[in-house]
Amino acid sequence: MKIATCIHQGKPYVGQVSEQQQTIQLFEVSEEEHQAGALSLILKQSQPQLSSRVLSLKEVTLTAPIPKPRRNLFCVGRNYHAHAKELAASVFKSSNADPNAWPIVFTKVPECVVGPFDPVTLPVHISQQIDYEAELAVVIGKGGLNISKDEAMSHVFGYTIVNDVTARDVQMRHQQWDLGKSFDTFCPMGPWLVTADEFDGLTAHVRCWVNGELRQDGHASHMIFDIPTLIETCSRGITLLPGDIIATGTPFHGHRR
Amino acid sequence: MKIATCIHQGKPYVGQVSEQQQTIQLFEVSEEEHQAGALSLILKQSQPQLSSRVLSLKEVTLTAPIPKPRRNLFCVGRNYHAHAKELAASVFKSSNADPNAWPIVFTKVPECVVGPFDPVTLPVHISQQIDYEAELAVVIGKGGLNISKDEAMSHVFGYTIVNDVTARDVQMRHQQWDLGKSFDTFCPMGPWLVTADEFDGLTAHVRCWVNGELRQDGHASHMIFDIPTLIETCSRGITLLPGDIIATGTPFHGHRR
Repeated sequence: MKIATCIHQGKPYVGQVSEQQQTIQLFEVSEEEHQAGALSLILKQSQPQLSSRVLSLKEVTLTAPIPKPRRNLFCVGRNYHAHAKELAASVFKSSNADPNAWPIVFTKVPECVVGPFDPVTLPVHISQQIDYEAELAVVIGKGGLNISKDEAMSHVFGYTIVNDVTARDVQMRHQQWDLGKSFDTFCPMGPWLVTADEFDGLTAHVRCWVNGELRQDGHASHMIFDIPTLIETCSRGITLLPGDIIATGTPFHGHRR
Repeated sequence: MKIATCIHQGKPYVGQVSEQQQTIQLFEVSEEEHQAGALSLILKQSQPQLSSRVLSLKEVTLTAPIPKPRRNLFCVGRNYHAHAKELAASVFKSSNADPNAWPIVFTKVPECVVGPFDPVTLPVHISQQIDYEAELAVVIGKGGLNISKDEAMSHVFGYTIVNDVTARDVQMRHQQWDLGKSFDTFCPMGPWLVTADEFDGLTAHVRCWVNGELRQDGHASHMIFDIPTLIETCSRGITLLPGDIIATGTPFHGHRR
């Protein structure tokens, strides 16, 4: 199932996207739940009924499937071999570049999430080096503490896409990355969330086009730390919550501007 | 004014602590607002009325003044000269130790916040190096984007105390610090929040005793980056929100175990 959140005539709605990706059929939930988008479905014990109301995707504005995550997104750095090599001379120069080390996990504030087609505001007075990073994002369904790799996939509700927009110079000068990753509008998400029963995150293809030109092209099987390992890592000593989002890192940029 | 949040007979309450710190007079707010604690007062436009209900602090259990922050806490690393020197050989070995560099800002998840007297669970199967870090925490009242140093203090609602409990080995092995700082129960907070009109954060004394022995003893005037600079830093390109918490870093440990 593809779950999308949208604005129609000024009001937020969450619904199921049709197979042909032409329409969205709204769920029968409260106004508050429509506002929380896919998060409200994750938090409910059972899937809500669909209403009879169907809107054309052309007449709505898609927002992020989870417009406001419940806490900072967990984000993984340097998780594809080629991208790690690419940044070896800059971001990773002063840290251990051994790809067999532990995963690098930082965060982005929930409020930097915007819709998939919303503009990203470039804070040009703060950063001269703003970069895109297309990433597969895992959305947790069932929370848990110390989740083992073997159990990890049963905790996945579904997947979405984020652009982990990064002010590369700010990321580096503060040593810790959270600020340079969290500028307002720095996390376009969507267009929708696909549930785990119809999408296999382990074999996902992650690509990014800039103005029609293919700039990033990676495959989840090339991740240094795979999705089960990332869930195990983030839940070690930290209770993962339903609706938590783990952005799994970005592949090689290739033709970087 | 000192604002505390507590549990009495199984229910949460927010109130004002008496001058003698013996009683708490409850505010006249909704159940939901009692549950959100001091955060509900920060979000209200005007200060709520006090009710006639007064409880002895002896008959309540104090919880964190903001039991669940609205997003990850902003936390500052290496912000006292002596502590920076202390960690130069371990945590900071591979990074720029120039205290004139930009502030280091990482985060802690909101759910690791516990009450001031709650136990901290040591995840001994995960970390063999767990450390205390007493810190002055700034609580933002008025949000804002790109707040200048000159304006910064007008955005402060008040102050509280946190223990930025840290799994030093986990902090280091992931390179980014968020995980090693965010284990469940790793942020005792309180006992209360003191409003900025009656407490001067710029001249605060930060001390930590372990089993009666003074282990940390610092002064806000010895911060490498002062509070106005930290507010300016965190709000550069990132809209600060009412209720945001900035933990300002920990002083020298001295007699570290």
